[in-house]
Amino acid sequence: MSQSRLIFVTGNTKKLEEVKAILSDGPNPIEIDSQALDIDEIQGNTQEVARAKCRRAAEILNGPCITEDTALCYEALNGLPGPFIKYFLADIGHEGLNNLLVGFPTKNAWALCTFAYSAGPGSEPMLFEGRTDGKIVPARGPPVFGWDAVFEPNGTGLTYAEMPSEQKNKLSHRYRALEKLRRYLQSGDML
Amino acid sequence: MSQSRLIFVTGNTKKLEEVKAILSDGPNPIEIDSQALDIDEIQGNTQEVARAKCRRAAEILNGPCITEDTALCYEALNGLPGPFIKYFLADIGHEGLNNLLVGFPTKNAWALCTFAYSAGPGSEPMLFEGRTDGKIVPARGPPVFGWDAVFEPNGTGLTYAEMPSEQKNKLSHRYRALEKLRRYLQSGDML
Repeated sequence: MSQSRLIFVTGNTKKLEEVKAILSDGPNPIEIDSQALDIDEIQGNTQEVARAKCRRAAEILNGPCITEDTALCYEALNGLPGPFIKYFLADIGHEGLNNLLVGFPTKNAWALCTFAYSAGPGSEPMLFEGRTDGKIVPARGPPVFGWDAVFEPNGTGLTYAEMPSEQKNKLSHRYRALEKLRRYLQSGDML
Repeated sequence: MSQSRLIFVTGNTKKLEEVKAILSDGPNPIEIDSQALDIDEIQGNTQEVARAKCRRAAEILNGPCITEDTALCYEALNGLPGPFIKYFLADIGHEGLNNLLVGFPTKNAWALCTFAYSAGPGSEPMLFEGRTDGKIVPARGPPVFGWDAVFEPNGTGLTYAEMPSEQKNKLSHRYRALEKLRRYLQSGDML
């Protein structure tokens, strides 16, 4: 039973705990350390943004690392705001995130999480995407965590913000991406 | 009468001609060469985006250079889409750029051009901003140049796309930024 250490680039303790919990599970547990790095995000689609950040992090750390990116994609806007969602949330809030869609026929959206893994400087990052489909709704539930209060995953009748964390963690975009990453890392192909 | 050469980082011949015409005017003409560079834009506000690009261009060119960035800022969205406008134009078109505002009380917007000048690698870029206020309207005029057909500068009754180029060039955000850059460069302080 091998055990390896890997740097997760984040300054967010909530995300760190979630990643640690999932990756330490299974037959080949991966030990995770974290480091906050000040890396500029680039403009581009979600895959370009994720690859650029992971490539840069591996250079700075001079070793293997994983990075994480989150996007909220509106069907009516062909996937936008997507990777720019944090600016829209900060500038127009939950109400604005709904108002953007008043002129469009569909409120469908998907939450997308992209984990990227690089084996080290110069090694092209691999991407692991998790997607959860749902719709944009007027805010319900505690408005404390990002856009969780305005995103209702299909078939649940609840926003992310209204769900117990055990329920959210079983269907969330982050969980789905992380499961793919875990299966890859624990296959032992690259460590 | 001194004459200096400066690299304008662009792959857009239309912008190059405009910049050449204005900077070659006046008592201290600046000769402009151009070079297209593949530089990732970062995410951030318009000033952060402009500074990062110019800084990187000066490193690559190992010398003085100017860069240009354009943003279209909606008052209702606290300045967004701003530097991300090219993605919105590409993904939702002129009609979508209007539809975004259906749920908001104001269609006011401003066009913002930011020229950045760096004296060379490691030299912090200086910014020259030009702003033109107006509003977002259903497309009028030839729909060929970016979002020109949906932006109507205040007091003109015409969209950018409907104006003769002489009229547009006297009030455009790019012209206003370029005039500031020209005055700075021709003051002879830095070349």
